[in-house]
Amino acid sequence: MQTKNRVDNLRAIMEESNIDLSIIMNVENQYYLNGLKAITYSRPIVLAIDSKNLSLIIPSLEENHAKEKTDANELYIYHETNLYGGDKKSYLDYLETVISQYPNGTRVGVEFSSLSLKMANILKEAGFELINLDHKIAEMRFIKNDEEIEMVQEAGKLVSLALKKSLENAQPGITEMELDRHGTQLLFEEMDNYPDATLDYFAMSPSGLERSIMPHVFSNTRKLLTNDIVVHSRQVALNGYRAECERTFFVGKPTDKQLDAFKAAYEAQLVAMEKIAVGVTAKEVDEVARNIFQQYNLEKYCIHRTGHGIGIGLHEEPSLRFDNDLVLQEGMIFTIEPGIYIPGVGGFRHSDTVVLTNEGTKLVTEYPREIEHLIF
Amino acid sequence: MQTKNRVDNLRAIMEESNIDLSIIMNVENQYYLNGLKAITYSRPIVLAIDSKNLSLIIPSLEENHAKEKTDANELYIYHETNLYGGDKKSYLDYLETVISQYPNGTRVGVEFSSLSLKMANILKEAGFELINLDHKIAEMRFIKNDEEIEMVQEAGKLVSLALKKSLENAQPGITEMELDRHGTQLLFEEMDNYPDATLDYFAMSPSGLERSIMPHVFSNTRKLLTNDIVVHSRQVALNGYRAECERTFFVGKPTDKQLDAFKAAYEAQLVAMEKIAVGVTAKEVDEVARNIFQQYNLEKYCIHRTGHGIGIGLHEEPSLRFDNDLVLQEGMIFTIEPGIYIPGVGGFRHSDTVVLTNEGTKLVTEYPREIEHLIF
Repeated sequence: MQTKNRVDNLRAIMEESNIDLSIIMNVENQYYLNGLKAITYSRPIVLAIDSKNLSLIIPSLEENHAKEKTDANELYIYHETNLYGGDKKSYLDYLETVISQYPNGTRVGVEFSSLSLKMANILKEAGFELINLDHKIAEMRFIKNDEEIEMVQEAGKLVSLALKKSLENAQPGITEMELDRHGTQLLFEEMDNYPDATLDYFAMSPSGLERSIMPHVFSNTRKLLTNDIVVHSRQVALNGYRAECERTFFVGKPTDKQLDAFKAAYEAQLVAMEKIAVGVTAKEVDEVARNIFQQYNLEKYCIHRTGHGIGIGLHEEPSLRFDNDLVLQEGMIFTIEPGIYIPGVGGFRHSDTVVLTNEGTKLVTEYPREIEHLIF
Repeated sequence: MQTKNRVDNLRAIMEESNIDLSIIMNVENQYYLNGLKAITYSRPIVLAIDSKNLSLIIPSLEENHAKEKTDANELYIYHETNLYGGDKKSYLDYLETVISQYPNGTRVGVEFSSLSLKMANILKEAGFELINLDHKIAEMRFIKNDEEIEMVQEAGKLVSLALKKSLENAQPGITEMELDRHGTQLLFEEMDNYPDATLDYFAMSPSGLERSIMPHVFSNTRKLLTNDIVVHSRQVALNGYRAECERTFFVGKPTDKQLDAFKAAYEAQLVAMEKIAVGVTAKEVDEVARNIFQQYNLEKYCIHRTGHGIGIGLHEEPSLRFDNDLVLQEGMIFTIEPGIYIPGVGGFRHSDTVVLTNEGTKLVTEYPREIEHLIF
């Protein structure tokens, strides 16, 4: 992944704000800025950036991995043995090494949302002034470049294929987890076409009246019953970049109330996909979807925003929320997923991933959205 | 899950330290203390505990989920719409509500490692004195009760079955991801025996000379070659509680150097499993394993600790590390996984999960460890 340009951008922001050093702890921002993606961060990784150096403080077991994946020119490796100098056995020891090069009063860029109080205390004790980079880095990540868009498009192909496979297997008697499994298995098979790629995936299929009204629950071993409603959701990340596709479907016959709610959610998604464009504000997209729910007298069941940015993060900024005045720009990528959750009736949400361009909105995911394709 | 006792324990710690309120942000600690496990925390969840109330600040899309899963007696629900009072649209708004009940100077328990600087600033501006609960809560989680041990044992059965299935399919030509897939698929099938349970799983199989020396890398589409070495690793969490099993194996014929290194890692694990017991210190367990590597003149390749606590966390305290003087106690659960990573030769690590009891060490995972069972 091309990350040099991103570091240059961050350095320009630092120069503008008289920031001499940035300490980046958010793991998504770390991946964005230096290309290293660890499996677990239970051994902390610190990315330190100044005008000259890109430094990584990493546990010894990431040393070889880092050498392959990062542009960092300084690696500080902490060990879990005293063989290599027992005094540097923690990331905090090397943090002291890095920050000791800067005088009292240095302005240091950090992420207020991600920096722990523990590390903040260390930086403050060194006499640093901490400047919040949360928003600036989020803004950098708003706009995806061509490489990022291609990665999300590839992820979109995969998530669409996997969703299709799961839905082909929908029938009474199958468990939520089995339903997910069919799509996941296809994903694994498809990965043969992406040598040396990494795959992350997530699926959930809350089913029935009680579970489908919970937008975020792990799939379990509940068996689908005849006439059940299911909200099937899937995300795929290919080399760390994500796309999302979700469909509400029935195994058997929906009730009139369910048909009505389905239609509302379907139309809400459609108008939001039509509305979203370069130059429109985030809240306008949310508003057109909510207006549909209002027309159906179902707005009180619309408990979440219409969509969110997606990329490295499974939910990232900007939010398509009622209170977000941000004007949307070319290169932004969103999920569009207005949803309603009605006790006794069920949950209703489709989600698709779209890229904004000056020539119009490109759909990254695909599967029919109409009711006739979603009754099994 | 029985969480009441844990909250009582935390309240006792708070009373001892004159802490009137605790704000818990670490998501594992939240699950430990109130039983709610969210799929994503991109919408923050706050757990606030005082002598009377267990309060949760949650996004509206977790409302139904929380009502089912938590003992919290106060739910503060923030909305992504202005339908329900537009002024409370963020977790921070309700944080203000909760903390406004406490006077300037209140001692507030927080996790210094997990609390963001953003939230810490809000609590400090309210005039609170922040007290670090990191270690006290980690200590509570050290010792697992019978319910937790049973959950880990069930996870151990599953992880052993899945590892066995993957290894049965090991052969030249199969990709790392395919190898993982076989075990994962079996896991899904096994889940039919656990109605209403949740499953998390992770597997990786870095293979070949270059990849097997990286202890933590995602599996990719590299195909196993004849005579390859593979470090196959798997964790399973059943209802959030984890067990881990890992085996180093060969497809084809190991070299003499590989046989030697395999033997060293095998013996190091064996002596560590024999050494670990109630009353022994963490570092003594690490030391016996390192001594074996020293005898083989391979100690410099031993770049990580001998093992770690496991439970809700995939790596949790206590660490079996060279500098940890902690005396081990009944009810602790560890992975035992000394490893060496030799450029040009490969990576070598077996891992098993063990429970410490006064009657001896109980193995939670099982698969043969000897070389004759690990050549395919």
